Amino acid sequence: MKIGFIGLGIMGRRMAANLQRSGHDLIIHNRTKVKADALVAQGATWADNPAEVASQVGLLVTMLANPEAVFEVALGDHGFLDQLRTGSLWMDCSTVNSSFSRQMADEAAGRGIRFVDAPVSGTAGPAEQAQLIFLVGGEEGDVEACQPLFEAMGRQTIHVGGHGMGSALKMVNNLLLGTAMATFAEGVALGHSLGIPFQLLMDVLPGSPVVAPFVTGKQPKIEAGQYEPDFPLKWMRKDLQLAAITAYEANVPLPTVNAAKELFALAAADGFGEQDFSSICQYLVDKTGPSADSG
Amino acid sequence: MKIGFIGLGIMGRRMAANLQRSGHDLIIHNRTKVKADALVAQGATWADNPAEVASQVGLLVTMLANPEAVFEVALGDHGFLDQLRTGSLWMDCSTVNSSFSRQMADEAAGRGIRFVDAPVSGTAGPAEQAQLIFLVGGEEGDVEACQPLFEAMGRQTIHVGGHGMGSALKMVNNLLLGTAMATFAEGVALGHSLGIPFQLLMDVLPGSPVVAPFVTGKQPKIEAGQYEPDFPLKWMRKDLQLAAITAYEANVPLPTVNAAKELFALAAADGFGEQDFSSICQYLVDKTGPSADSG
Amino acid sequence: MKIGFIGLGIMGRRMAANLQRSGHDLIIHNRTKVKADALVAQGATWADNPAEVASQVGLLVTMLANPEAVFEVALGDHGFLDQLRTGSLWMDCSTVNSSFSRQMADEAAGRGIRFVDAPVSGTAGPAEQAQLIFLVGGEEGDVEACQPLFEAMGRQTIHVGGHGMGSALKMVNNLLLGTAMATFAEGVALGHSLGIPFQLLMDVLPGSPVVAPFVTGKQPKIEAGQYEPDFPLKWMRKDLQLAAITAYEANVPLPTVNAAKELFALAAADGFGEQDFSSICQYLVDKTGPSADSG
Amino acid sequence: MKIGFIGLGIMGRRMAANLQRSGHDLIIHNRTKVKADALVAQGATWADNPAEVASQVGLLVTMLANPEAVFEVALGDHGFLDQLRTGSLWMDCSTVNSSFSRQMADEAAGRGIRFVDAPVSGTAGPAEQAQLIFLVGGEEGDVEACQPLFEAMGRQTIHVGGHGMGSALKMVNNLLLGTAMATFAEGVALGHSLGIPFQLLMDVLPGSPVVAPFVTGKQPKIEAGQYEPDFPLKWMRKDLQLAAITAYEANVPLPTVNAAKELFALAAADGFGEQDFSSICQYLVDKTGPSADSG
Repeated sequence: MKIGFIGLGIMGRRMAANLQRSGHDLIIHNRTKVKADALVAQGATWADNPAEVASQVGLLVTMLANPEAVFEVALGDHGFLDQLRTGSLWMDCSTVNSSFSRQMADEAAGRGIRFVDAPVSGTAGPAEQAQLIFLVGGEEGDVEACQPLFEAMGRQTIHVGGHGMGSALKMVNNLLLGTAMATFAEGVALGHSLGIPFQLLMDVLPGSPVVAPFVTGKQPKIEAGQYEPDFPLKWMRKDLQLAAITAYEANVPLPTVNAAKELFALAAADGFGEQDFSSICQYLVDKTGPSADSG
Repeated sequence: MKIGFIGLGIMGRRMAANLQRSGHDLIIHNRTKVKADALVAQGATWADNPAEVASQVGLLVTMLANPEAVFEVALGDHGFLDQLRTGSLWMDCSTVNSSFSRQMADEAAGRGIRFVDAPVSGTAGPAEQAQLIFLVGGEEGDVEACQPLFEAMGRQTIHVGGHGMGSALKMVNNLLLGTAMATFAEGVALGHSLGIPFQLLMDVLPGSPVVAPFVTGKQPKIEAGQYEPDFPLKWMRKDLQLAAITAYEANVPLPTVNAAKELFALAAADGFGEQDFSSICQYLVDKTGPSADSG
Repeated sequence: MKIGFIGLGIMGRRMAANLQRSGHDLIIHNRTKVKADALVAQGATWADNPAEVASQVGLLVTMLANPEAVFEVALGDHGFLDQLRTGSLWMDCSTVNSSFSRQMADEAAGRGIRFVDAPVSGTAGPAEQAQLIFLVGGEEGDVEACQPLFEAMGRQTIHVGGHGMGSALKMVNNLLLGTAMATFAEGVALGHSLGIPFQLLMDVLPGSPVVAPFVTGKQPKIEAGQYEPDFPLKWMRKDLQLAAITAYEANVPLPTVNAAKELFALAAADGFGEQDFSSICQYLVDKTGPSADSG
Repeated sequence: MKIGFIGLGIMGRRMAANLQRSGHDLIIHNRTKVKADALVAQGATWADNPAEVASQVGLLVTMLANPEAVFEVALGDHGFLDQLRTGSLWMDCSTVNSSFSRQMADEAAGRGIRFVDAPVSGTAGPAEQAQLIFLVGGEEGDVEACQPLFEAMGRQTIHVGGHGMGSALKMVNNLLLGTAMATFAEGVALGHSLGIPFQLLMDVLPGSPVVAPFVTGKQPKIEAGQYEPDFPLKWMRKDLQLAAITAYEANVPLPTVNAAKELFALAAADGFGEQDFSSICQYLVDKTGPSADSG
């Protein structure tokens, strides 16, 4: 079966490559064409716009930066939603708020299109190694239909519930991710400032019971002080903003998450936006440093 | 060698029992005598006040609730510091800020007493099973002298640096502990409110890359909604307050930690102070609940 | 000249009544018709939907709860924007973020309609007494054309700049309003808890150099502990959320404002959403109370 | 009557000068002697240490930077408390937490000394012009005995309650002061970033109902971008820290105040600590600036 894939950023092109490797024929599109080159060289077919992708496939995957980008590609000029055949399936892997996923499910349903929200847990490394975790919302049958794709791109599928529930769990996942990193940075800055050697903090904290395990994967960046982005800090700020909007809609207070969100905003304002979000450590350590009277 | 042990709360009496099991003779004291009964039954000697403990031992361990309690026991009426023989060693396992530890080290040094700050990572379970991690500050030789005790009560010793550095790392450990729990609660409340079943959140989040591993140990309490305290919420609030004071002294901004601190304050004001600090989940979930329009 | 007025809530119907008093013929519409009765009794003409208002007027005022409501009335089913004559003027007094105002200005311009964003500073009392302050964005000539209406409904007009600049200043105004009230509540709760008599706090704080003057107007509610809404707490939460979204778009960190936003969220979750936003005092004072050992 | 005065900083020497002007003979001391020169030239008598002040007076005023400084001067080497005659009166105008004031009252009472806590509202200008507001805690008779001094240095006396209640109200005053300034800075940064001219914000916001009146006094500094300190930012951070500690002791959650506290901490870490606390505006405006797409 031919599969459409729109959105070939850091995550998307790695995911698409895994679909290709597992034998799927891809029709692909991306805003900037150059990112499609490697996939085309491996046999994927380029399409000039989202609508052109839609006309050739029965299952279409999107992996885009935010709700606005998804809306544009689906429903804007040359959007794909009006071009998909009745009964086709749209799997949206983008990180969006759950109310937006439900809105897209409704737009799809109005055109006889099936919809699954399937955002992922994991960044560039797991995407490359087909080790993503899919957080899925949608009808049982539609989720089953996507299962071969999930297996080609990931290691686990969590079917959370109906439309929007995958995005809901993704919001939760992201707020945990972002605040865990912000908190780790605060802890490291405090420890360093109290006179604990930086390397000792790196040896002791990641992997300990009080630090989220993903931090271990960020450790080489933090130790080297080199933050080429697997996941840029400005995107983490965006994801926490999405979580805050979702919480607002759901009437859930998130005081700690909002504080972390604003810490990332401060770091972005100081020029850390394009670096990996783990650079929040550098941001805080830079401005504190060991205090004169530390032991 | 006879060892003094002052402070027989949830942690202290488990730690003292492990010292006893490994063959040490204990002279013990506690504000409320009844908590000493089991240890006395196993052969420990009761002393009526801290000074009386000091006169019988060359190594004295304290495990108390806060800096004020340590100060009182060491330097208040019938305090032990003036009664210890020159060359004796005081190991303080209490959770205090590092400037306080350095102040105690100075008070001790002025009397010819050696000092090691050795707060622990781990709560009642690890204390019982001699699985604590000791975070240690002090002179190399003094730390070595304590090593048999660390091994009797724990599974790992991290010698962080000079006086106060054990307490410094403990501050870091605690702020990570407290904010990880607060953030977990916010994530669970949001997910639940968006319509994700509570049990699914419990099945999926603890143990995932974005959740600190210690949370898995709290899962049974959270699932059962029964929060008998291993570590009361009011103590977590205290520990975050200590971290905030330490950060103030060291000129380190901790916006996320302070937000978590105030969330615990709100929960304490709503009556959760005596329950385990993991009840912060219940506090937030209670006041939100699934929204009417969840999927 | 006939003037259209859509949105007859707490604010809108008072503003419309002042237009009527100053001699303007009104064509009015509201989602729930009953709120139009008093105005109709005074001579206003009811229209069944926004489009029907538009077909009868050259100047149309909207005063609605949020961007979504404005969008619906302007561009939804029976929206007014396609029905206004070329050269007509739309004055939007709703509280919306400035990017939304600019979007509406563009939608209007695309149809040959002029647009002014003119949100107000002031609540029910000033609305009733024609003492509002208009914060205005738009072309010079368009703002001048609105001047007679501003004078009929308010006491001051601040022309801030081009499209969206009125809404921009309104965002600033609202974040100051909300955080000032939240902070006042925290101050009162602390003072009360330290043993300062509640009435003394009320006598001393409002009107002092450190308290925003509008608080004096809220004092009777706070003293009486009766919070019938001039401006419901849930709307303040909404306005702070709008400010947070605007700040996100503009890359401005707002840590204090976000903390206040979440405090209102907590109060709303405890059932204060429908009461006046000054009830945030009650929320905090209730859960603290004078401490046992206060002087 | 001879009056002792210890602490001749920005505030203290202006207050002492007003006592002198109203005819009081002063015995004065300060850590750095040079700050006493002008007062000595006007007839005050220098004393080499606090104890020497105490031996010559029946009423002693202290105006020091923090609780630690007060403790040292009262009870440290050459402290004054053991040298005051029985029945003497100590008026402490320093900003300290109320539990500390009560502790000092107890220390004084134990020596037969009367105690009044009398911190002030107002900075350098009002101190110079004898326009301070005294927030007073203590016994009725003792407060009356201080009244001539209050009148020589201020324009209003608020007798709040027993020992520590003056300090309690001062904590409330300071948290309102600090968060009002932090919030104003956030509002100005947002408005500026949205494209509102900086001068327009200065013309419109100070003096408006949503801005605390004291901000108007800071306006010249903010407009000029010159922040020589009337009240250094690091002291504001200290005062918010004191308020946070007080709130912790009283079990009062202060989420907004703590967020403002950390914003000042961030500004201090970026080098604003020695400037006036109104420079928090500059700190935020510097790092944001008008966004490219503002209207």
